[in-house]
Formats: sequence, C-alpha cells, structure tokens
Amino acid sequence: MVLRVFNTMSGQLEDFKPIHDKHVGLYVCGPTVYDWAHLGHARTYIAFDVIVRWLEFKEYSVFYVQNITDVGHLTTDTAEDKIVKRAIERKVEPMQLVEFYMREYFKDLDALGVKRPDISPRATGHLLEMIESIQELIQKGIAYEVDGNVFFDVSKLDDYGKLSKIKLDEMLEGSRFEVHKDKRNARDFALWKRATSETVLKWWSPWGTGFPGWHIECAIMGLKYLGSQFDIHGGARDLIFPHHENEIAQSEALTGKKPFVQYWLHTGFLKINGEKMAKSLGNYITVREALKKYSAEAIRLFVMSTHYRSEIDFTDERLKGAETSLARLYNALESLEDAQTVSVHREPNEAETKLGESVENLREQFVNAMDDDFNTPQALAALFDMSKAINRFLDEQKQVSTTLLEKVYDSFSGLGKALGIFQQEKTKAVGEKLVDDLVKLLFDLRTELREKKEYGLSDEIRARMKQFGLVIEDTAEGPKWKLA
Amino acid sequence: MVLRVFNTMSGQLEDFKPIHDKHVGLYVCGPTVYDWAHLGHARTYIAFDVIVRWLEFKEYSVFYVQNITDVGHLTTDTAEDKIVKRAIERKVEPMQLVEFYMREYFKDLDALGVKRPDISPRATGHLLEMIESIQELIQKGIAYEVDGNVFFDVSKLDDYGKLSKIKLDEMLEGSRFEVHKDKRNARDFALWKRATSETVLKWWSPWGTGFPGWHIECAIMGLKYLGSQFDIHGGARDLIFPHHENEIAQSEALTGKKPFVQYWLHTGFLKINGEKMAKSLGNYITVREALKKYSAEAIRLFVMSTHYRSEIDFTDERLKGAETSLARLYNALESLEDAQTVSVHREPNEAETKLGESVENLREQFVNAMDDDFNTPQALAALFDMSKAINRFLDEQKQVSTTLLEKVYDSFSGLGKALGIFQQEKTKAVGEKLVDDLVKLLFDLRTELREKKEYGLSDEIRARMKQFGLVIEDTAEGPKWKLA
Repeated sequence: MVLRVFNTMSGQLEDFKPIHDKHVGLYVCGPTVYDWAHLGHARTYIAFDVIVRWLEFKEYSVFYVQNITDVGHLTTDTAEDKIVKRAIERKVEPMQLVEFYMREYFKDLDALGVKRPDISPRATGHLLEMIESIQELIQKGIAYEVDGNVFFDVSKLDDYGKLSKIKLDEMLEGSRFEVHKDKRNARDFALWKRATSETVLKWWSPWGTGFPGWHIECAIMGLKYLGSQFDIHGGARDLIFPHHENEIAQSEALTGKKPFVQYWLHTGFLKINGEKMAKSLGNYITVREALKKYSAEAIRLFVMSTHYRSEIDFTDERLKGAETSLARLYNALESLEDAQTVSVHREPNEAETKLGESVENLREQFVNAMDDDFNTPQALAALFDMSKAINRFLDEQKQVSTTLLEKVYDSFSGLGKALGIFQQEKTKAVGEKLVDDLVKLLFDLRTELREKKEYGLSDEIRARMKQFGLVIEDTAEGPKWKLA
Repeated sequence: MVLRVFNTMSGQLEDFKPIHDKHVGLYVCGPTVYDWAHLGHARTYIAFDVIVRWLEFKEYSVFYVQNITDVGHLTTDTAEDKIVKRAIERKVEPMQLVEFYMREYFKDLDALGVKRPDISPRATGHLLEMIESIQELIQKGIAYEVDGNVFFDVSKLDDYGKLSKIKLDEMLEGSRFEVHKDKRNARDFALWKRATSETVLKWWSPWGTGFPGWHIECAIMGLKYLGSQFDIHGGARDLIFPHHENEIAQSEALTGKKPFVQYWLHTGFLKINGEKMAKSLGNYITVREALKKYSAEAIRLFVMSTHYRSEIDFTDERLKGAETSLARLYNALESLEDAQTVSVHREPNEAETKLGESVENLREQFVNAMDDDFNTPQALAALFDMSKAINRFLDEQKQVSTTLLEKVYDSFSGLGKALGIFQQEKTKAVGEKLVDDLVKLLFDLRTELREKKEYGLSDEIRARMKQFGLVIEDTAEGPKWKLA
C-alpha cells in the first residue's frame, strides 16, 4: 500500500510522492528558546519523530531541518521579543538565555527519544540571507519600506490565504493583525522591523538597524537547506495562520515556484485535564517535570495513542495507563527473548505456524494503519494484539522453533522500534553489588579449581584480578575487595 | 594570597585584577567543528575548565564565551575551508556536518566533566557584525578592499606583533603568510575573502559574495559578548600567532581602546608518546576513544598533573597511573565517609588535632599553588599528601570526633571538587570497565574449563552470571554483557 498523508493545503488525504525519488526534505518549525520545553512541544516533536521514523521504515532517506528561533518572535499582546523580555527579567544576556534553553531543549528531546534533526539552524545565523531576500522582494515590488520597516504587500498575491482558507473579509474583521501606521493594508506583515533605542537584539541593514520578522526566518531557512520546493513542512496547528501562510507567500514570491511545499502536516493541540495548558491556569507542565513522573517511552506511547492531527488530552490517569501498556509490550518482548534461550531448531509445528500467520496479519494491519496518514492509534492496537497473541502462545508452549521465534521477534520488536519504543537500555547503574557478585563467583571457582588441583587456573584468577586494580582480602565473611 | 597569572603579553606573572570587581569576562577560542574532538582539545578545555572552577572557588563570577567556528577556518596547505572540504568528502551539507560534530563535541566535553560556556556563539551567527566592523575598518583607513577581498593593513599599527613578539623581518622570512597578489604587504591578513564559483559557504556583502577571515570571527564575537575590553582571553599556544595577534590588531583598531584583553593565557602542546599527535603518524586519539579506555576524571587528573602552560605527554602508562591515583583519592574520600558513620560527638583528641592542623596546612599549600598561575601539579601533590595523612590516621583510629571528620571531609572533598574531580557517582567509580574485566576473565576461564572438559564448572559460570542479572552476548569482539 502506498503511504497517504493528509495535506492541510488540499484538506485531503493524498498519495505521498517525494520530489526526488526516495529522498524526503522535511522542515518542522522549531522552538523559540526562551523557556523550558513543555508537553505541547513534546507532542509536536514526538509526532514528527514518529513520521520521520515511519518514512525511514519505508526506506525513504529523510533530510530533516528544524530551526531554533533566537530572535524576532514577539509576544502577541505587547509585541516584545520573547527572548529579550525573559532575558531582562532574569538579568542575563539574551544569547546566554538562548544558549541555556537551547541546550535544555535538546536534552529534553534526547531524553524523550526524539531523533535530532540533521540541521538545527538558528535565525541569527541567517540574517544576511534574510536581508538579501527582503531586498529582492522590494526589488520585485512585493515588499515596501517605510521609515526603516519593511512590509510584505499581500495585495500583490492572488492566492494569499490558500493554506489557512481564511477569507480576506473575515481576516479584516478579526484582530489577528499587528497594527502599524506605515502598513498599506492591515494584513501586510513585517519582514524587517526598525529598532528603537530600547531594542536589545538589533542588526545593521540597508534600512537601518533592526531585526527580522518571525515569518521570514523559517521561509529563509527552509529555502536555504531544502531548496525552493520541498516535500513536507510541519508544525503545530496554531502555526497555520499567519506563520505558515506567510512562509508560503514569501517563498513563492521569492522563487516564483509553486508550490513551495508539497505536503503541509499539522499536529493537533494538547490539553491538560480537558483545559488549555497555560501558566495562568496553573496546569503548565514542562517535559522535565513530566520525565520525573513518567518514563520517556510512556510519554511517547501516550502521544501516539491519539492521531497526530487530533486534539490530545493529558491526564495523570492516561499517563499511568501508558506506563502499564508499555510494560505489557516489554513483557512480551522479554518473554520472546527468554523463549529464544530454550528454543529448538526444527520446523514450526501447527500452533507455531498459526502464530506466525497471526503475527503476519497483525504486522500488515500495523503497516496499513501507519500508511494511512500515520495512524498510530490503530497501529498500536495491532501491536497490542500481537503482544497478546505472543503471550497466549508462549504460556502454552514449552519449547518453540527457533526459526518461528526469530521471525516473530523481528516483527514485533521491529514495529515497536519503528514507533521509537523498545529503545530503553536495560542497563541500570553498574553497582558495587554486581562486582561483589562477580568477585564471589570468581572466588568460588578458585576454591573449586584448587580442590581439583587446577592450580594454573586458580592462580590466574588472583593475578588477573590484581591487574584490574582489585585488592582482595579474605575475611571471616568471605573475600572482600577494594580498589588498589 | 592574591591570584597571579602568567600573561603571554608581558611574559610575566601578574596579579589578577578584573576590570569589574568580582566579575570576570573570559573568551576561549573554540573548536572548528569538522571532526571529532581529540586529546588536544581535551587538554585545552580541561585546563580552562580548571581555571574557571578556580576563579569560582575564589568567588569570582565568570562569564565564559567560547565560540564555534563553522566557516572560514582554512587548511594551512591548500587554503580550503576545513568544514567544506570534509563535507564534500562525506557528501553531506556543510551545516549538517557542523551540526553533527558540534553536538558530539559538547557530548564529549560534557562527558569529560567540562562545564559548558555561558555562550557558544557560532561564526555564521555573526556575519553582519563582521561586515559592519570590516566597513568601519575600511572607513578608518586601516583596511582596504581589492577586487572583492578586504585586507587588514598591518603597517597602520605601530604595535603589531606585541603578543607574539615576532619581529617584522623575522616574520617576512618565515612562510607563515598567505600569499595574495592584492595584498599591499605580505603580513596583511584577510578580513573578507571573495567567493569563487566553487566556494560553497558564501554570503552577500558590500564587496560581493564571499566569506569572513578566521581572525575577524573571534575578535567580533569577543567584542560583542564581552565588550571592548575584557579580562582573560585563552587558547592553545599555537593560536598566539597569527590568530590572537590579529584579534588584537582588529579589536584595538575598531574600538580605539587598549588593551583589548588584560590577560592572555595559553595552554601548552599535547604529545602522544613523545611525538606530535597527527593522523599521518597514526597516533591520533579522539576524546571518544580515550573515554572508552579511561574514566573522565582520570583524563582530567592526567591533564592537571602537568602545568597548563607546559607540554604534556600522553602515554598509556601515565593514564593508567592517573586511574590508580584517582582510585586512591576516592578511597580516602570513602574512608572518611565510612568513618563518619561511626564517629562520636566529642572534642578532638591530640591525634585528631594534629591531623586537623596537617590538613589545614596542606589546604593552604593547595590554595597557594592554585593562586600561583593555577599550578595544578603542586596543588595535586598537596591533595595526595592530604589523602595519605587521612588514610594513615584512619588506619590507626577506631572512633573519631564528628567535628574533626566533618572539617577534614569538607577540606578534602572541597578541594577535589574545585579541580572538577569527586563528581563521579560512587557506582560509576566502580566502573563498567571493572565489570568488563571481570566478565572477560570469567569467559576466559569458561573457555579453558571447556577445553579441560570441566563442563560442570563452565556451566556454573553462565548460570550464576544470569542470576546476577547479567545477560551475556557473544559478539565478534568477544562477550558483551548487559543487565537484564
């Protein structure tokens, strides 16, 4: 079955065909790094991580760009730079704040098992490219400068609004436009903003000192690393308008090529106990806090239990449920591993053949679900059915055919890994207890070897342990060791 | 005692007085991220980490900037951009290569226990600032443009060469200058280089597309985040000329303020078994490889066993020695911890008072050594003497005064922590390496027992290891273990 994805642009499921054969160019809007990553970020980036992993499962090679916004993202109410505002509150350098939260963002996402993008470009690293592009837009007559501010003239496009489907009159009625006396039209948006004496992050430009608008940043970084047309652009649903709408406007005006992006994918909102997550509501949960209570893979399982486009509701109960479900999947995996140690080389018997068929069917269900716009809830249902079939089977069987077991194990663990689970290392911290146990074993062996008069081997044990830096003392309670 | 530092500029030890009271501005030249961090990096950044920690121990607040060079650092032989060259070899995007090695660099340095800088600015994030400054230098008549290249006119300065003490005639005799037909003088250096059709990383500028020279990058990032004059600039010794010399020339010409930097600190070279480390010599060791063989704190101890300005020679023997020395320090720490559990609340007796005095004296020796240009070998000697005194004392005493123990523990652990050791979790100190060794020994025994047909014993080994929770996998490189 061919992979189908829901394209926000067409409002429909479409067959997925990348521009360049098996290569997929993917851009996902990254965080503005002025605070801790929260569950909303986790939801979005886990969803796209699952998408990346599924594309890779389908043998696409994915080139994944996700930006870091470190300037120009303004607060909606007071139009202040989010980073500068926080830096002033904390009395630190804005770039020190950026450095800190960028680092912690990656730590959190690493902890969640989200693969790193191939490039994480920073907005401040692309100012020259932005300025150059803004100049080009002015030359083309699509942008205009007034008194150090540069605006994009939306009236020059006949297809503005095509992504968000917002009609012009509706747009004007809303209050979603920044008011500015120099704008020709209310819906025009800023490409470059003039700095005032109070602006902290500002740069030299052909229009005087200033800073870039937020929308031009992603457009430019997308174009730079993925080309004038690429396959997938993703982000949370609230970015559709105006952010992504404006990215399209700028990019297509710059390159003259349409469409800028083939498939627009958007993730649904996250709620906490049925409410919008907000600091003011006191239900704001950071990834760091969530990871103290729940395992990374349980959080991932929770995210995947809802389709990426749907609204998802975070409750303690659901997370605890995810933890239990995860343990169930791991149990099946471990049962398979245990069964392998006592498996036998022979042709599968009837019961085994039946299990093999059942697993194969469920595997197909899983693949079909994922190919249907990454339908993780349905894919998970197939995976749970598989775990049940495995457990039921292993409860009844004593010795299983190695070939069958390997096949079942590969299917089951392979699908889990495709979703980014079954990644947990079982290694806990290596403790002194383990060394105690090993030393005790070696001493027992030494005693037995001496009894058997195998003095060569028994001497070797003590000599080599000494090499490791272990000093052994024989005490009343048995041998004790310490480091030399 | 006041802290004294050796200033490369004066060639002398100087009293350390920051510009702003207890605030220290520190810039250290960071890596060009086109390959794995190697032991040379480890040496430099551990050395500066120790310096930062000592300044903090002395209650300075350190603002530490260390750049990431992601463009403009050319190979000495063929004058190619190091990053672009490698990216072409690997068939990846230059910024993808940068992203990868930058991430791995921080991973390695984190693993070595090196604290992160407050800001890690990237050269590509400061191109506008560089262009603006180059324009300013042209306007001041200190730089000139020829055919899309901009050079710094060294003849305009009367104090060029003051850091490296290289005399003009000597300079011209050497071959350390890039030859360029458009240069007025051989020793002039490029601020901006014109792009050719083959240049991969290039940007728009007032002089046409091109890219910045390496020396302007650090000058601009230092000025931007630390101001026109700051306290300490550090780096490896080989950066004195031309890199740091040119940083001074550019910065002082731009700001008109002298000195750009108060104290120039440089680390000595690292050799491997007495030879220069080089890929061609086959003795090139990455941090990642070193960390497989040695613990992070042993590597740190090894680096600190030589003064930061001196040449250091890496040999397996010295690293093994460092591992043993580290274990000795941890043993003393653990003995103190053990003694605390059976300590009694009473006034210190004579022997205890004597130990207290001895520890206090050694503490003073340690502090004096560190205040004397961060003399870590001498400071370590005091720390080892302290560990010996502690062990000797605890061997003789049964029950010790709680007050005395707490004081001794605070001194000993506090000084270790000031050097960045005693950070290991106790379980880690035991080390996976030790478990590796023990498992390897057990497996060798098992093989030998099988050869001797002692199947009872060989089976016992596997069975009991399983009881401990060890799962053994036979791999091509020998048995590997993990915890179940």
